[in-house]
Amino acid sequence: MTGSKIVPVILAGGSGTRLWPISRDSLPKQFLGLGSPKTFYQETLLRLPEKSSGVTDPIVVTSDDFRFFARRQAAEVGVEATVVLEPARRDSAAAMIVAARIAQQRYGDDCLVLALAADHLVPDAKTFRSACLTAATVAEEGYIVTFGITPTEPRTSYGYIRPGAPLGVPGSFKVERFVEKPNRETAEGYLAEGYLWNSGNFIFPAALMIAEAEKFEPEIAAGAAEAVATATEDLGFIRLGKGAFLATPAKSIDYAVLERTDKAAVVEGRFAWSDIGSWDAVRELGTPSEEGNVTFGPVSLLDSRNAFVHSEGPLVTGIGLDGFTVIASDDAILVMPTDRSQDVKHLVAGLKAEKRNEANEHIKIHRPWGTYQTICRGERFHVKKIVVDPGAILSLQKHHHRAEHWVIVKGTAEVTLGDKVYTVNENESTYLPIGSIHRVANPGKIPLELIEVQTGSYLGEDDIVRLEDKYARV
Amino acid sequence: MTGSKIVPVILAGGSGTRLWPISRDSLPKQFLGLGSPKTFYQETLLRLPEKSSGVTDPIVVTSDDFRFFARRQAAEVGVEATVVLEPARRDSAAAMIVAARIAQQRYGDDCLVLALAADHLVPDAKTFRSACLTAATVAEEGYIVTFGITPTEPRTSYGYIRPGAPLGVPGSFKVERFVEKPNRETAEGYLAEGYLWNSGNFIFPAALMIAEAEKFEPEIAAGAAEAVATATEDLGFIRLGKGAFLATPAKSIDYAVLERTDKAAVVEGRFAWSDIGSWDAVRELGTPSEEGNVTFGPVSLLDSRNAFVHSEGPLVTGIGLDGFTVIASDDAILVMPTDRSQDVKHLVAGLKAEKRNEANEHIKIHRPWGTYQTICRGERFHVKKIVVDPGAILSLQKHHHRAEHWVIVKGTAEVTLGDKVYTVNENESTYLPIGSIHRVANPGKIPLELIEVQTGSYLGEDDIVRLEDKYARV
Repeated sequence: MTGSKIVPVILAGGSGTRLWPISRDSLPKQFLGLGSPKTFYQETLLRLPEKSSGVTDPIVVTSDDFRFFARRQAAEVGVEATVVLEPARRDSAAAMIVAARIAQQRYGDDCLVLALAADHLVPDAKTFRSACLTAATVAEEGYIVTFGITPTEPRTSYGYIRPGAPLGVPGSFKVERFVEKPNRETAEGYLAEGYLWNSGNFIFPAALMIAEAEKFEPEIAAGAAEAVATATEDLGFIRLGKGAFLATPAKSIDYAVLERTDKAAVVEGRFAWSDIGSWDAVRELGTPSEEGNVTFGPVSLLDSRNAFVHSEGPLVTGIGLDGFTVIASDDAILVMPTDRSQDVKHLVAGLKAEKRNEANEHIKIHRPWGTYQTICRGERFHVKKIVVDPGAILSLQKHHHRAEHWVIVKGTAEVTLGDKVYTVNENESTYLPIGSIHRVANPGKIPLELIEVQTGSYLGEDDIVRLEDKYARV
Repeated sequence: MTGSKIVPVILAGGSGTRLWPISRDSLPKQFLGLGSPKTFYQETLLRLPEKSSGVTDPIVVTSDDFRFFARRQAAEVGVEATVVLEPARRDSAAAMIVAARIAQQRYGDDCLVLALAADHLVPDAKTFRSACLTAATVAEEGYIVTFGITPTEPRTSYGYIRPGAPLGVPGSFKVERFVEKPNRETAEGYLAEGYLWNSGNFIFPAALMIAEAEKFEPEIAAGAAEAVATATEDLGFIRLGKGAFLATPAKSIDYAVLERTDKAAVVEGRFAWSDIGSWDAVRELGTPSEEGNVTFGPVSLLDSRNAFVHSEGPLVTGIGLDGFTVIASDDAILVMPTDRSQDVKHLVAGLKAEKRNEANEHIKIHRPWGTYQTICRGERFHVKKIVVDPGAILSLQKHHHRAEHWVIVKGTAEVTLGDKVYTVNENESTYLPIGSIHRVANPGKIPLELIEVQTGSYLGEDDIVRLEDKYARV
């Protein structure tokens, strides 16, 4: 146990194309569970060392697009998180320095920042927590400590760290050097020489990181400081100063500080870890059948081996698949030899260039108040399933071209229609004529689920006039 | 032009597992279009020689399950078909003799039967028609004439015919022998020796077929005769006598008669033809891209060649596919090397053994009055899209455990609820409480489309009490 406060900072702003079609830009992998009931972000929050070890509530750094996920998913697992919003992506250096500044403001000069990626997998939380506390004692000595992972095989998809002179705490070393992703042969050499995987998770004194950044990257340091100084609060979110942040150069914390400072240390993490950076990494987390097949969801294979099939939607069948990966969602399927997993990003770039909706958007669309999903579409009608969170309220709105029928299938709706307010219960319906001013709220304690049948000659999402909105979208 | 009447008989009772997941037992390939607006069955009807050549309205032989498809799809293309229902599958010999009997009853002893599979593809209808009339003149001379197809390559998925002595009509020959599906080498030899593909389509004098069957397969001949003699009419369908038909041995017409008679002739069909018997056969119908890829529907491929991707649902993407086939429907996906196409039937057999619904059933369920389709399902609710054909009427029914909300999104509904009958128009809704006696009809001229939201504690299809039904399902 350290004397200093440990401030967890969760970096949750990453985009999600490498695990497409399950992860997409509109809902990237940190906010998904890949079939597990908790998301990677939630698992990250639950994996933090206990408060009794001097650990504070976490600070989450993410983008505007993901603010409601970050808050709602934290609340779901009982974690009180401060959510900091970046006006744009500026890589990890700016995010890390911003987090150090906010931690310093809140918890004083000697606090430590435990900076963790929101989208990594560490099944053994207990060993992880104990490694955090070990690393904290090293950080307290004046080091920026990175978690190195004892490699289990010569992976070519990770960067490596060569440990140098041992430090006082067992399993901790000065960093001799960081190295880029190697080829297979080089990776084998690294394993023989005792290199560690660079996990990209850190713990450091807030003041030290700020000082080192000022030394090596004064522009980033100043931009981050200014973005914090000009931050505003908005519905409980901390919105960083836009002008200052946008002017801050984008650089990874590795390039900006870690590879240049003489304060870099590494703590050997003897726990299973994955950055889940591609589908072949996900495959490695599964338990293969006798034939070497790893499957999730409704799958049936004939005469196949070393296949990886993950379906969150349709039944996937295969004949004679060997070393193949098939990923299925309700609206998009990906098929490839598993060793092409690194090329998914190129495929998605192509889909974006073709302006295919499936490149970025999921069928289920998330909103501050809940979710909606198209379940059927016709020439002059459109059917959606809408889920409104307890206590949430949609904007007061009207549509010029469509009427709406709402059938409540779960929970209780409070409906405003013109100057009337009334309750609609399960197995009841209500009708909202074209042009009527209306809104729906969920006054209850359970999610409200309703089926909306829209009819009209124009059914685009943009036929909405918002007259009043709790979530500041007017 | 012949002097005899030509009676087209369409054999449309086949099951559909070889083109799974698009074709399934509940709606097999003859009643599908594989992306074309007309189905194979409809194309077959439209390909028949003109009535001015002495051709009668067609007789369709199919199973009870497909009776409404057979009638509705014929009506859609303006063809008046007599639909004959087999109580069970008994292969082609029984069907052919039954058809010959019915033709003979209707059109006399000297009529010719033109027996065609409902699920073959012949793009050039004009050449096909002229081949039919040529074959009819041969049949009139006292032959059972089979259409042989001039091979374009040494296919191993077809049976072959060795033509013997030429007959009087140019391009017609006695059959020297029929041979089974060969291996590649043998097939190459067949091509060199002038063998023809055995298309399984025939024309013959009704009386001759009956006589030959009586000679070689008296049991089948007697069973078929008895099944016709004891047939009943039901809603305009001819329902074969069940006991007699069930007792009839199952045998193909090739084994039963063609390979044994000395009256077998073959007419060389110089038209493109496919039995579309497997996905690789479907692939051959497509136009390959520069990379050799054949695609249908929403597909995006990276770095792939000789791939065949057919999607009737989700976006299908592939990386590094070479010689692979991917078939996608809304609820099931099939991935395999294209040369495994013959194994789809084994895969489907496995799915049936696993009791997977997708093995047999489509998402859209066909009923005599139209179709329905589940579009969303929850714990205590179920949403369907229902389409009612013009003039159709559902059964008078009630449910013990569910209430229903109907929102009309297209057309006009005539709703019966208890002792009231009322009209519900587009953009209107109605509510049917639990236990209420109700029915819906489409009194209009366009299809009626409605969204049904069921709510209740039990939502199984079997919670239906039918009190009265136009389609004899009470």
